[in-house]
Amino acid sequence: MMNLESLAAELRGFVGITRKRAIGDLVGHFPVESDLIIASFGEDAAVIDDGEEVILLAADGIWSRLLEADAEWAGYCAVLVNVHDIAAMGGWPLAMVDVFSAASEDLAEEVLSGMRKGIEKFNVPIVGGHFHPDTPYSSLDVAILGKAKKGAVILSSSARPGDSVVVGVDLEGRVHPKFAINWDTTSFKDGEVLLRQLGSMRELGERALVTAGKDISNPGMLGTLGMLLESSRAGAVVDIDLIPRPEGMDMLDWQKMYPGMGFVVTAPPEKAGEVTGVFIERGLASAVIGEVTEGRRLVISSGSETAVLFDFEAESITGIG
Amino acid sequence: MMNLESLAAELRGFVGITRKRAIGDLVGHFPVESDLIIASFGEDAAVIDDGEEVILLAADGIWSRLLEADAEWAGYCAVLVNVHDIAAMGGWPLAMVDVFSAASEDLAEEVLSGMRKGIEKFNVPIVGGHFHPDTPYSSLDVAILGKAKKGAVILSSSARPGDSVVVGVDLEGRVHPKFAINWDTTSFKDGEVLLRQLGSMRELGERALVTAGKDISNPGMLGTLGMLLESSRAGAVVDIDLIPRPEGMDMLDWQKMYPGMGFVVTAPPEKAGEVTGVFIERGLASAVIGEVTEGRRLVISSGSETAVLFDFEAESITGIG
Repeated sequence: MMNLESLAAELRGFVGITRKRAIGDLVGHFPVESDLIIASFGEDAAVIDDGEEVILLAADGIWSRLLEADAEWAGYCAVLVNVHDIAAMGGWPLAMVDVFSAASEDLAEEVLSGMRKGIEKFNVPIVGGHFHPDTPYSSLDVAILGKAKKGAVILSSSARPGDSVVVGVDLEGRVHPKFAINWDTTSFKDGEVLLRQLGSMRELGERALVTAGKDISNPGMLGTLGMLLESSRAGAVVDIDLIPRPEGMDMLDWQKMYPGMGFVVTAPPEKAGEVTGVFIERGLASAVIGEVTEGRRLVISSGSETAVLFDFEAESITGIG
Repeated sequence: MMNLESLAAELRGFVGITRKRAIGDLVGHFPVESDLIIASFGEDAAVIDDGEEVILLAADGIWSRLLEADAEWAGYCAVLVNVHDIAAMGGWPLAMVDVFSAASEDLAEEVLSGMRKGIEKFNVPIVGGHFHPDTPYSSLDVAILGKAKKGAVILSSSARPGDSVVVGVDLEGRVHPKFAINWDTTSFKDGEVLLRQLGSMRELGERALVTAGKDISNPGMLGTLGMLLESSRAGAVVDIDLIPRPEGMDMLDWQKMYPGMGFVVTAPPEKAGEVTGVFIERGLASAVIGEVTEGRRLVISSGSETAVLFDFEAESITGIG
């Protein structure tokens, strides 16, 4: 296997991580001054007080390069990523709205067909939005509304030193034929199977088994863990040999993948076994891969070798934390 | 004044009306199958059951040509139009999320500055979203979450023949120097004044004074009324001489304007006086301008002249209805 230092350097330079840096700048522009807002930037979804429950609100845009590579897949992914944002918080989705700009009718048809597949598979309706049929570019933005029980919300910012780092990820998939950093595990599976996998986070939240969690997105598994740690003002040591990985997949390639279904969570060590049990029982591969630490560095190890992947004192991923 | 038939023809051809046609196509792609969804497409915001209250969810994108003409104004308008979507339903806003793609840092700074002005003026926080700093185009989409009391929601689809048509609109403004179809009445006024104006719809809803309503947007006052009538499967006769209009403003120009603050509602005739009273008391000009009819045509009149503006049996604005 490749040298750990070069793996770390490659990952730091990976666009899925570096492009997240702009988020921090945005936060400074938008101070949140409302007593109802329990959590906002840095979370997969904002959390808004609603009595016994909380309202979850998130928005995600589809990269233009994904729209260009495969419009139908992009439409499908717009639903997929939003549904994950709600699931990652321990909640359930209620409805989506979208704003869609299309440069051509052909592209519009493909995107809409993909969105419809996502809607049917994940059983969340689109209830409104806007369609701009006459733009010089194509873009697709979706916002999603969900709910969660108030005590069951899973935040990104609440990992604690000493917690175990646990991942749950679907290994039964294929690299998307047109988009080499998408690990597709959903398009060919029944909605029922997917809803069962997605529900793992809700179960973890409602059974109070985790301290923090996030769905694995563009920055990959370790990049997503990095964002969680930065929000939590903590670090971690991760043994990369413990990371569940599809057979024959190179570790660097795997770390750059956007998996169809994957979560990284932190849990008190005495509950880590129950956490992996929930993931596995619901059809995901799962393992304890490391431990949260005081020092604000994400360190990866393999055998006797170690390397610093991120040092949040010196640099930031999102600028939040 | 210009001939009524040519006014009607000009308005029918107005881009603000014709570009709405694509909405109907979208609806067919997105069947809504959820018992919790009380109303969706065709409304300013979707209405989702939440016990004693309802959750309101809407999304709006900013036209690329507005971003190009004045990026700061576009950022401000993104907030303005979303806040109006919630107000128009008789609700109150809670939070917004955005997806923002910027082709340059300068444009990004201007848009964010405009958004911040809107956030401060209308007192609704942005609580999350995505920023794409590296796109070949610029676009800005915002989604908004609000609430309303369950019995107080104002829909677009519930106007009834015999109802009076009432408008409430702020005449104290100026044509935006860079964007000739924006009637700006908000950028130079205190937030307190604006929130009082916006609250007129919530008061109308909670006092059960109106049967339907909508905020006046891109299609202008008569175009917006047309959308409301199409959703309600009804028609109307409007006396255009009764329409409140800024001094010196040409009627055709006025009908193409996106006003900073304006609503069109329908009300039982015996309550129409109370409705204009609410608008006027909250700082808007208001008048009864016509009556809802059985026939699915929007007819405009002036003196003894009449002309058919829209015939929903023959053609549609949104395709919903």
